[in-house]
Amino acid sequence: MGKVRVIKIEESAYADNERTADLIRRKMDGQKTLFLNLMSGPGSGKTTTLVTLINMLKSEYRIGVMDVDIESDEDAKEVADKTDIRTLQIHNGGLCHIDADMVSRALSEYETEDLDLLILENIGNLVCPAEFDTGAHKRIMILSVPEGDDKPLKYPLMFKTSDLVLINKIDTLDYFDFDLEKAEKRIHDLNPDAQVLPVSAKTGAGFDLLAEWVRKNMPLAC
Amino acid sequence: MGKVRVIKIEESAYADNERTADLIRRKMDGQKTLFLNLMSGPGSGKTTTLVTLINMLKSEYRIGVMDVDIESDEDAKEVADKTDIRTLQIHNGGLCHIDADMVSRALSEYETEDLDLLILENIGNLVCPAEFDTGAHKRIMILSVPEGDDKPLKYPLMFKTSDLVLINKIDTLDYFDFDLEKAEKRIHDLNPDAQVLPVSAKTGAGFDLLAEWVRKNMPLAC
Repeated sequence: MGKVRVIKIEESAYADNERTADLIRRKMDGQKTLFLNLMSGPGSGKTTTLVTLINMLKSEYRIGVMDVDIESDEDAKEVADKTDIRTLQIHNGGLCHIDADMVSRALSEYETEDLDLLILENIGNLVCPAEFDTGAHKRIMILSVPEGDDKPLKYPLMFKTSDLVLINKIDTLDYFDFDLEKAEKRIHDLNPDAQVLPVSAKTGAGFDLLAEWVRKNMPLAC
Repeated sequence: MGKVRVIKIEESAYADNERTADLIRRKMDGQKTLFLNLMSGPGSGKTTTLVTLINMLKSEYRIGVMDVDIESDEDAKEVADKTDIRTLQIHNGGLCHIDADMVSRALSEYETEDLDLLILENIGNLVCPAEFDTGAHKRIMILSVPEGDDKPLKYPLMFKTSDLVLINKIDTLDYFDFDLEKAEKRIHDLNPDAQVLPVSAKTGAGFDLLAEWVRKNMPLAC
């Protein structure tokens, strides 16, 4: 079982978010750590996705996770228990997002220099997290099949600002009225550059392509 | 097909929210309109729930809906198309909530004096909407089965402040690892007074009890 640490970060300086985010990216570039920001609505499968992905990649890379929640430690514990990697739980005091200043403070408490891959599991929300650059290199978002294929119309900024959109829980496609083609079209209408990957964190379907996406984005070791 | 109107309300005075909310409640009391605030995460089934409920009650009551979204009109159109009632679409300009001041401005554009029941379909979010009194008499929230039974641990304020928690999509219980008893216990640990109703907006299961809950909360006509 991996270790879980908990810290409280309840207020943010907010100003100069972009500058702080750039500083975080430069730090990550310097130490050759790929930093990913994973976002979705509540219950779309962020934690299960992390567990499945990390277990595929942990023999290749040294991986760390920072988990943001309002007050519970459930997600960080689940990731630590099921992957045996080091996780940090960040309590954000009821806010609907995490910004670069809060990430920066978390990084002062959490050793990342030895990591190849650091993943921020953002708070479950399709509105606020889209507005904040956290200092991550890439943004991944999850839309799950039970949520419906209309979500790009409803939460456009999240889809516009994501590099990779995972359509999760495709094992339940028979059960829900979700049109995969329509969803992809709506995502690409907002963001032609977004890569869209249908996956199931439960069955592992599509995760070979997700792992490949991560490998391709890894900084070149020299 | 009912009518859809669209107005933009992009900024909020924020201050004096409680006072404004009380004024809204007094206005609703004066005109004998029950005002409900319907909240959930994205894709939990708010719109389908509204359609199913309104079609059960529209022969008994005069019903209106105010639909809050960032920029789309999909939900208000769906409600209007499928129920033939009057809906107002409110665009909140990218915010993660609606507050009493914004409701108050919407009410100046939307005739409610003749309504027995007014329902606010809030933005899909389990964090921000819980923090704002909108002037509604009662708060209903939806947790859907695919989101998982751990959500009360993750978004406690939403569960603490709701009068009625609908557990929706129970037609998919066989497909997801969701423990209904555990969910109810977690909700009641946070909020012993919350009523919990398992429903399916798709099949109509449990909606007789939901309709009964609405009838019981109706102001007495005199």
